[in-house]
Amino acid sequence: MAKIDVAIIGASGYTGLELMKILINHPHFNITYIATTEGGMKASELHPSLLGVFEQEVLKADASEVAKHAKLAFLALPHKAAMGFAKELLDLHVKVVDLSADYRLELEAYEKHYCEHEDKEHLKEAVYGLPEINRAKIKEANLIANPGCYPTASILGILPFLSYLKKDAPIFIDAKSGVSGAGKKPTPTAHFVSINENIFAYNPLKHRHEPEIAEKLRLVSGHPFEVNFVPHLLPVSRGMLVSAYLQTNEVIDAKATLQAFYKNERFVRIREVPVDIKSTAGTNFCDIFVSQKGKSIFVSSSIDNLLRGASAQAVVNANLMCGFEESAGIPIIAYVP
Amino acid sequence: MAKIDVAIIGASGYTGLELMKILINHPHFNITYIATTEGGMKASELHPSLLGVFEQEVLKADASEVAKHAKLAFLALPHKAAMGFAKELLDLHVKVVDLSADYRLELEAYEKHYCEHEDKEHLKEAVYGLPEINRAKIKEANLIANPGCYPTASILGILPFLSYLKKDAPIFIDAKSGVSGAGKKPTPTAHFVSINENIFAYNPLKHRHEPEIAEKLRLVSGHPFEVNFVPHLLPVSRGMLVSAYLQTNEVIDAKATLQAFYKNERFVRIREVPVDIKSTAGTNFCDIFVSQKGKSIFVSSSIDNLLRGASAQAVVNANLMCGFEESAGIPIIAYVP
Amino acid sequence: MAKIDVAIIGASGYTGLELMKILINHPHFNITYIATTEGGMKASELHPSLLGVFEQEVLKADASEVAKHAKLAFLALPHKAAMGFAKELLDLHVKVVDLSADYRLELEAYEKHYCEHEDKEHLKEAVYGLPEINRAKIKEANLIANPGCYPTASILGILPFLSYLKKDAPIFIDAKSGVSGAGKKPTPTAHFVSINENIFAYNPLKHRHEPEIAEKLRLVSGHPFEVNFVPHLLPVSRGMLVSAYLQTNEVIDAKATLQAFYKNERFVRIREVPVDIKSTAGTNFCDIFVSQKGKSIFVSSSIDNLLRGASAQAVVNANLMCGFEESAGIPIIAYVP
Amino acid sequence: MAKIDVAIIGASGYTGLELMKILINHPHFNITYIATTEGGMKASELHPSLLGVFEQEVLKADASEVAKHAKLAFLALPHKAAMGFAKELLDLHVKVVDLSADYRLELEAYEKHYCEHEDKEHLKEAVYGLPEINRAKIKEANLIANPGCYPTASILGILPFLSYLKKDAPIFIDAKSGVSGAGKKPTPTAHFVSINENIFAYNPLKHRHEPEIAEKLRLVSGHPFEVNFVPHLLPVSRGMLVSAYLQTNEVIDAKATLQAFYKNERFVRIREVPVDIKSTAGTNFCDIFVSQKGKSIFVSSSIDNLLRGASAQAVVNANLMCGFEESAGIPIIAYVP
Repeated sequence: MAKIDVAIIGASGYTGLELMKILINHPHFNITYIATTEGGMKASELHPSLLGVFEQEVLKADASEVAKHAKLAFLALPHKAAMGFAKELLDLHVKVVDLSADYRLELEAYEKHYCEHEDKEHLKEAVYGLPEINRAKIKEANLIANPGCYPTASILGILPFLSYLKKDAPIFIDAKSGVSGAGKKPTPTAHFVSINENIFAYNPLKHRHEPEIAEKLRLVSGHPFEVNFVPHLLPVSRGMLVSAYLQTNEVIDAKATLQAFYKNERFVRIREVPVDIKSTAGTNFCDIFVSQKGKSIFVSSSIDNLLRGASAQAVVNANLMCGFEESAGIPIIAYVP
Repeated sequence: MAKIDVAIIGASGYTGLELMKILINHPHFNITYIATTEGGMKASELHPSLLGVFEQEVLKADASEVAKHAKLAFLALPHKAAMGFAKELLDLHVKVVDLSADYRLELEAYEKHYCEHEDKEHLKEAVYGLPEINRAKIKEANLIANPGCYPTASILGILPFLSYLKKDAPIFIDAKSGVSGAGKKPTPTAHFVSINENIFAYNPLKHRHEPEIAEKLRLVSGHPFEVNFVPHLLPVSRGMLVSAYLQTNEVIDAKATLQAFYKNERFVRIREVPVDIKSTAGTNFCDIFVSQKGKSIFVSSSIDNLLRGASAQAVVNANLMCGFEESAGIPIIAYVP
Repeated sequence: MAKIDVAIIGASGYTGLELMKILINHPHFNITYIATTEGGMKASELHPSLLGVFEQEVLKADASEVAKHAKLAFLALPHKAAMGFAKELLDLHVKVVDLSADYRLELEAYEKHYCEHEDKEHLKEAVYGLPEINRAKIKEANLIANPGCYPTASILGILPFLSYLKKDAPIFIDAKSGVSGAGKKPTPTAHFVSINENIFAYNPLKHRHEPEIAEKLRLVSGHPFEVNFVPHLLPVSRGMLVSAYLQTNEVIDAKATLQAFYKNERFVRIREVPVDIKSTAGTNFCDIFVSQKGKSIFVSSSIDNLLRGASAQAVVNANLMCGFEESAGIPIIAYVP
Repeated sequence: MAKIDVAIIGASGYTGLELMKILINHPHFNITYIATTEGGMKASELHPSLLGVFEQEVLKADASEVAKHAKLAFLALPHKAAMGFAKELLDLHVKVVDLSADYRLELEAYEKHYCEHEDKEHLKEAVYGLPEINRAKIKEANLIANPGCYPTASILGILPFLSYLKKDAPIFIDAKSGVSGAGKKPTPTAHFVSINENIFAYNPLKHRHEPEIAEKLRLVSGHPFEVNFVPHLLPVSRGMLVSAYLQTNEVIDAKATLQAFYKNERFVRIREVPVDIKSTAGTNFCDIFVSQKGKSIFVSSSIDNLLRGASAQAVVNANLMCGFEESAGIPIIAYVP
C-alpha cells in the first residue's frame, strides 16, 4: 500500500514531539513536512532526544507549501492560531486533524469560553474525534476536532453509565493531570519547586474542558447534565487520572455494564483493580475501573494525556480518515517501569 | 510553670518521629520515656536525622514503667496493640492520647471494620480529638481518640456546610495522600517505582476511614449522610489534599459560610485560591478553599497527614487535656520550599 | 527470513519486562517460552501494563523444555541461579545471553566478589557483551555475559581516553542510578519515602561493579588502572548518569578524541552540551559529553539502566549472535517528555 | 537580653523566605524591616505559607530607612545589586550579612568571574562567613560574605584532609543540588518536566563556585590546588550532596582524621554510613562521610542548600557578630520524612 504524506504543524511542543515519535515508524504515513511558527532548525534541535533518530528540517509554517507536500495535516497549534491555518488547508483540500480546541465546541459555547470564531463554515462540518462515539463520522470527515485530554478520559469513563444516570443529579469529576498537559512554557506554576511534593486544584468549576464534557454528554444522551469539573496538577510529567462520581436512578451492575459497553473496543481496557497512570503512559489505552455503593458510582479512568489525550488519538483519527486499520502504528506498550 | 512528663510509645514509625520532633522543643512537656516493641537503642539510631539532636534511650514498652515516669502517654502503635496498652495505662491513671483507630468508632462500627474490641469500658469515655468539634470535652478527657488523617481533612472541609446539605444526596470525597500515610513498612505498593510518576485509588468506597467520617458527620448533624470515600496515593512523601463534592438544599454563599464558621479557629485557614499541600506541610494548619456552582459545592482541604493528621493534632489534644494554651509548641511554619 | 524462537527465563522483574517489551515487536525473534521460578500465570498478570497486549502463559522454568522451544534464551535471573541454568541450556545447545553477573568476571575475581563458580567450563568461553569492544567475538559466541549497567556506562565513557591516561593516576567514577536498578524487591531502601527528595551513595568503593569495570579496562588497555567507583541512588525510576574524572599524560583534544572514537557506532551519541538521562531513557543509546581543563577530564555518560544497561543490550547481543542487523528491533525513541 | 533589630532585604526569593522562617522565632533577633525591590504587599502575599503566621508589611528597599530600624541587615539580593546596597548600609553603620557573591572573592577573581566591583573599599574588610575556618574574624566583622552553597559543602568536606593532599594532584568535586538552588525564576531548565525523572551536569568545570572553592582552599593551605568542580541538578526541591575525590601523599586514617578535625563543631556531624540529603534538609548541619582505598579518598558531604548553604549560616554569622550563642535560634531538626 502506498504511504500517505502528512504534515505536522506546530512541532515544538510536547504534542508535536509525540506526533513525530508515532509517525516516524508508522506503516502508512510519511512525514513530509514539519513546521513551527519560525522554522529554521532540525527536528533534533527542537527535541534533542531525536539526535541520530530524526533529523528532518523544520520549516516556517506555510499552508500552500503544506498542500504541495501532504494530503493530511496534524495541527498542534494554540487555539485561535489553529483555525486560521486549518481554514487555509481545508480550502486547499488538505485533510486536517486539529489538536487545538478550535473545532471542538458548538459555536455559541466556543465563543463564550474561548474567543470569536473565525472559521464558522468549517466548524459546522468538523467531527469530534472520539472514535468510541463517532467512528463512522470520523471515517468520512475532512476535519477532525481532536478531543481535549480531560474530556477524553472523562467521557470514556462516564459514557457506559449515561443512560442510567439520575437526570437531576450533578456529575462530579475530580481530575488529576501530569504537568506536560500544561505545556512547555516556563511559568511560576510549572516551576519544579511549585509542583514537586505538591498537588492543587486549578480553575475549579471553571476550566474550559467542562463545557466540552457537558456538550458531548448532552449530544450523546439528549439530556443536559450538570457537570462539575475540577482539575488538579500532579507532580508527574505525564499521565492523567479522572475520577467521576455518578448517581444512577436504580441500582445497576456497574461492572457488567462497563464490560459490555466496551467489549469490542481495542483501546479501552477494563480493570479489576483501580487503574493507575503508569500502565497507560506511553500508550493509547484508556484503562477504566468502576466501583459502586448502591446507586452511587465511582468510575476511575486513566490515560496518557499526551497520547490518548492528544497525539495518539490524533493518529487514530487519521488512520480512520484514510481507511487504514484503526490501530496501525498506534503505541500500546507502556513505559512502565 | 512546671513541665509535665510525657511518654511516647511506638517511636519507630513516622508519627513517633513527628511526636519527638514536636515535643523536643515543647515549652510545657518533657519527654521522659520513649519506647518501641523491642527497645534497646537510641532515638538517633531509630531515626538517623536525630543524631546530635536527641539521643535519648528507647526502651521496651512497659506500662508500669510508663506510669512511674509520665503523666500522659502518646500511643503511636498499630490498632489492636494500642487498646491493650491504653487500658493498662488508664488503669494506672496515665492520660492517653491514642493515635490508632482503637477508640475512634462506636463499638459496633469498630468491630465491623476492625476487630473485636478488648477495652469496651474505656471506649465509652474516649473523646474524639478533633478540637473544632470537641474542644470542651477534650479538656476533660483522660483518653483521646486522635482522629485519622483522612477524617480530619474531610470533616473539617464538610463541617461548615453540614446543616445546608441535601439530606438524601450522597457526599463524595476524593482524597489524595502522600505515601508516609501508609507507614514505613516496605511493601510492593510503597516501592519507589510503584509510586513515582503514578497515582491510583486504593480501597475505593471500602477504606476504614469512610465509616469514621460518616459516624462523626452523623453525630454532629443528627443525620446519617451517605459518605462515598475514595483515597488515592500520591507520589509525594507527606501532605494530603481532600476534595469534597456536596449538594445543598438551597443556594448558599459558600465562601461566607466557610469564613464565618472558622473565624475563631487558630489552626484553620481559609484560602482565596485553591489550597496546595506544600503550604501546610510541616504545620498543624488545615487550609480550606471552597467554590460552587449553584447548589453544587467543591471544598478542598489540605493538611500535613503526619501533623494535623496525626502527631501535631495529638499534641494539641494533650495541650488541651493539661490546661495549656492550645497552640503551645505546635508547628505553624511550613517546610516550603 | 524465518524468525528465530527465543525464551525469556526470569520474566517477573524489570529486565524481564523490558525483554518482553522489545521482543514482542522484534522483526526476527519470536517469544516461544517465558518462565519464572514458579510459573502459573499470564504475562499480563505479572505485569498488568501488558493486559490486552501480551497474554502468553508464563511457565515454571525447565531447561529441557526451553531446548524444545527455543534456539536462544535470555536469562534474567539472580546471579548464582543463572549459572546453573545457563550450564544446562548450553549443554542442550541453546545459545544463552545471561543478564546476571555470573559470566562477566574472570574466575578469581568472580569468586572473590560473588561466590564459588559452578560452571567454570563455560566461563572460559563466555564473551563480555559490550559490542563496542567485542563485536567480532559476540558474533561467534554461544554464551554472552551481558554487562552490568554501571560498567556499560562507565566503560563507554572512559574507553576513548584509555590510551592517553596517566598510568599511576586513579580513575574516579561518580555514578547515579534510578531505583529500578536495585530491582523490584520491597526493601527499606527502596521505600518511596527513603528515595524521594533524597540522594545518597551506597557501597562506595566497594560495589561489585568496580572490579568489573577495572577488569575490562585492564583487558582493553593492558594496564591495571586503579578504579574508584561510587554509585548513588537517585529519586528517579529509570536512567543512569555516570561521571568519570580522568587525568591524561598530555593535554589532548578530548572532544575530537571522543568523536573520532565513536564515529561509526550506531548506539553512541556525542553531545555538545552535558547529557541528561531523559534523552536516553527508553532507548539503547549511550549519550556522552566531555569537558576538560588541561589534563583533567570530565566525561559524562547517560544510559537507560534497564535497556542499554540490561535488556536492549542483551537483544543487540542476540542480534549479533544470530547474524541479524545489530539494530534490528532495538528501541531508539526516548520516552521524553 | 534585649533583642537586636534586623532587616531582611530581598524577601521574595527562597533564601529570603528561609531567613524569615528562622528569624520569626529567633530568641535574640527582631525582624523590624523587610523589603523587596518593589515592596507594597504583606509577607504572606509574597509567601502564602506564611498566612496567619507572619503578616508584616514588605517595603521598597531603602538604605536610610533600614538604618533607622535595624542594627544588622541580611541581604538576599542578586550579585551586583547587593554591593551597591551593602556599601550604603555599611556607611550608615549597619552591619551586613551579604548572601550574594559580591564579597566572597578577592578582587581580581571577582572581576574575572562576575563583573566590575563597585565597593572595593569594603571588599578588603569583608570576612568569608564559614565559621569552621573564620570564627574569630566573624565575631569582629561588620561585613560578612556568606559562602555559596556548593563551596560550603565542598570546603567542609575537603578541609580535614587538606594538609595530607598530594600537591600536584587535581581535586575532583562532583556536586548535586536541589532545584531551589537555581532560584525561583521560571526558566526552561527549572520547568518540572525538564527536571523530573532527570539529572544533568551544568557549567561543568566552569561554574563560578569553582574559583570560590579554590581560593578558600588556597588561603587555608597556602597551596594553589587544582579544583575541578562539576555541579548537577537533581529532581529534588532542596538539599545538596557533594562528593569530593582526593589523593593523599601517604595512606592516612581518613575516618579518624575527619572525626578529630570536627570533634568540637556543633554543626558538623560525622556519619558512619554514607550521608543522605534528607537527614540535613531543614537544618544547619553539614553531615560528612568518608571512605578510602589506600591513598584515594571519597568524602561525601550533605547540607540543606538553602539553610547551611545560605540562610541558616547567615544567621549563625549574625549570632557570632552580635555576641550571641552560635546556635541560638538555628534549626537542627530535619524535615524528614
